[in-house]
Amino acid sequence: MRRVAVVGVGCTRVGELWDKSLKDLIVESTLKALDDAGIEKIDTIYVGNALSQILQRQGNLGSLTVDVLGLEETPAISLEAADASGGLAFHEAVKAVKFGWADFVLVVGVEKMSDASSSEVAEALMTFEDQDYVAFTGINQAGLHALLLRLYMEKFRVKHEEIAMFAVNAHKNAANNSYAQFRSLINVEDVLKSPIIADPLRLLEYSTIADGSAAVILCPLEEAKKIKKNPVEVLASTIATDRFFLFERVDMLTFNSTRKAVKKALEEAKISLQDINLVEVHDASTILGVLSLEDLGFVEKGKGASFVAEGHISLDGTLPTNTFGGLKGRGNPVGATGVYQIVEMVWQLRGEAGKNQVGNAKVGLTHNLGGTGSYATVNILKGNLT
Amino acid sequence: MRRVAVVGVGCTRVGELWDKSLKDLIVESTLKALDDAGIEKIDTIYVGNALSQILQRQGNLGSLTVDVLGLEETPAISLEAADASGGLAFHEAVKAVKFGWADFVLVVGVEKMSDASSSEVAEALMTFEDQDYVAFTGINQAGLHALLLRLYMEKFRVKHEEIAMFAVNAHKNAANNSYAQFRSLINVEDVLKSPIIADPLRLLEYSTIADGSAAVILCPLEEAKKIKKNPVEVLASTIATDRFFLFERVDMLTFNSTRKAVKKALEEAKISLQDINLVEVHDASTILGVLSLEDLGFVEKGKGASFVAEGHISLDGTLPTNTFGGLKGRGNPVGATGVYQIVEMVWQLRGEAGKNQVGNAKVGLTHNLGGTGSYATVNILKGNLT
Repeated sequence: MRRVAVVGVGCTRVGELWDKSLKDLIVESTLKALDDAGIEKIDTIYVGNALSQILQRQGNLGSLTVDVLGLEETPAISLEAADASGGLAFHEAVKAVKFGWADFVLVVGVEKMSDASSSEVAEALMTFEDQDYVAFTGINQAGLHALLLRLYMEKFRVKHEEIAMFAVNAHKNAANNSYAQFRSLINVEDVLKSPIIADPLRLLEYSTIADGSAAVILCPLEEAKKIKKNPVEVLASTIATDRFFLFERVDMLTFNSTRKAVKKALEEAKISLQDINLVEVHDASTILGVLSLEDLGFVEKGKGASFVAEGHISLDGTLPTNTFGGLKGRGNPVGATGVYQIVEMVWQLRGEAGKNQVGNAKVGLTHNLGGTGSYATVNILKGNLT
Repeated sequence: MRRVAVVGVGCTRVGELWDKSLKDLIVESTLKALDDAGIEKIDTIYVGNALSQILQRQGNLGSLTVDVLGLEETPAISLEAADASGGLAFHEAVKAVKFGWADFVLVVGVEKMSDASSSEVAEALMTFEDQDYVAFTGINQAGLHALLLRLYMEKFRVKHEEIAMFAVNAHKNAANNSYAQFRSLINVEDVLKSPIIADPLRLLEYSTIADGSAAVILCPLEEAKKIKKNPVEVLASTIATDRFFLFERVDMLTFNSTRKAVKKALEEAKISLQDINLVEVHDASTILGVLSLEDLGFVEKGKGASFVAEGHISLDGTLPTNTFGGLKGRGNPVGATGVYQIVEMVWQLRGEAGKNQVGNAKVGLTHNLGGTGSYATVNILKGNLT
């Protein structure tokens, strides 16, 4: 087994990119990543996408990606794991390098959602849930998150204000991120006065519809050191699942996918949670952000909201979280999100995060969920290797 | 790198399986494969599917598959490469075993098409082609095949009768396959008198709408020898692509995806084409079957139709082809097809093919296309290892 490093990252702006097609997005992020790595040759491509077959009616993305990049001798593999598609593509690419299948691997996550209406998107997102027993009822993803939010507040006697602070932090961090969809500062009153989208969940608590693509280039660490002065090592990359239906789980407020994935990741990285300086968690909604911090083990179950409200997750807090705005602030182009998390973590670990640079960014964790926690990917990255 | 073997195979009947859900199909094929292998433990799952997110509105199949199989500690990866999704899932699973990522790997291909109308299916299949320039014109897959058929007949001065013989052979082989969708014997007049579906392509030349699932279990050859008396070795497994648009290729009648994939496969297997005793090729239509035999190198370009008409592809011919009926006879549950090809080849190589057993079945090749040849997977399998 070989040690694996990230040598190049790149991404497009996240937002309603009317003038860019799915292909344009793939090309833009990839060229940036190749440029960042300073290489031209790629051995294998992993593509993460969740919705294009529905929203653009475009499948077969492996072949399409090879074609638009003009890399016709390069095998390409397209993967889907709902919202965790980007995370899964990264995971498979890490395996490919680690186990010697390929030397230089491109991971590209892409999603284009704004061409569709919001109801079409809501419907498309429900393909991530069980059709026979969950989607069948007519509930949508926001509805499922609202259910968790209400349950959490009642079970742990937590105020909505505390949970809403997750979105305030997200927008604050996004404000300095030129790639972010939402760069406006908001306060907790703004969140709680915003329209209800599924009672009690408010509009400003929920990630929106976005287009974007992010790309990462991986290679063996030994190679990386030769071509890049500041490679970032992938200490661990794991995937895990939980019961498919939310309501078949022993505790709906605990995602075992996350718990299993982080446990395996810490073992693989041979570090403890205390060694992690900053995180990117899957805040598709405020409540998912809070639950994820708990499931990852950074704070006890039921204490996540006060942890957030006390400012621990801010850039100068004890656990800087979603430092470029996360799903809520940077935006959530679904199948690309897991790859955006890697790009942003790499910027932090290389000390290239500008105004949002975290002082002690040595080891970072990224966490990408699929469905309502039925799928999880966790990665642990380390910078400052010299 | 480890040598890889197939230790278990299983599949459902192919057809309009109204009483079986996507989940039922996955469970049935997997249980049969586990039973065949005589094992209970699986380390990793690869799922191949092309259309469920559109036709059942069911995505996130990795997580779903883990859940319905009750294998909650097992990571699952879902892949899509159009009609070659099953082939890609198998390829990724082979890599996982070969490079030491996992020991016992399940590959499951699944598709359920008959719930949808035929126009919905035709539309869904067009997600495999470029939306901006190809699907946009309103052409469907049958139309693209018809174009190739006309071009082939004109360029090589070949009679339609000769090409149509591919379907006659398919039905003849399917007649003895209790898993097949079409078990009726047909002759060349039947084919050419059947309705035109896209001039000049006839109904009986084209694979139809089908449900089905096939499963394969892989492990290192050394392990396989301990648990199974007749393991089948995977000598090679490759993927490759061609230009995404048919009309951007130098020669529309040559699929470079197939040519590249078979070249790499022969190198990997360290054998020549002459060592191959039988094949499963991707006959989504008669013309694709003929072109594939040529692109694989078994017959010169332009001579494939006469090769077929002369009976070389029959069970007692020089190159027994699609011995269980192929896509046309056995049926084509799209994302499962590549895995069905492996199941059937394994039966041949173990001498378990019943009435369709090929006498000298030692080394077999399977070939699965995605889109109109934009994606190809090739596998070379070997039996009689003792």
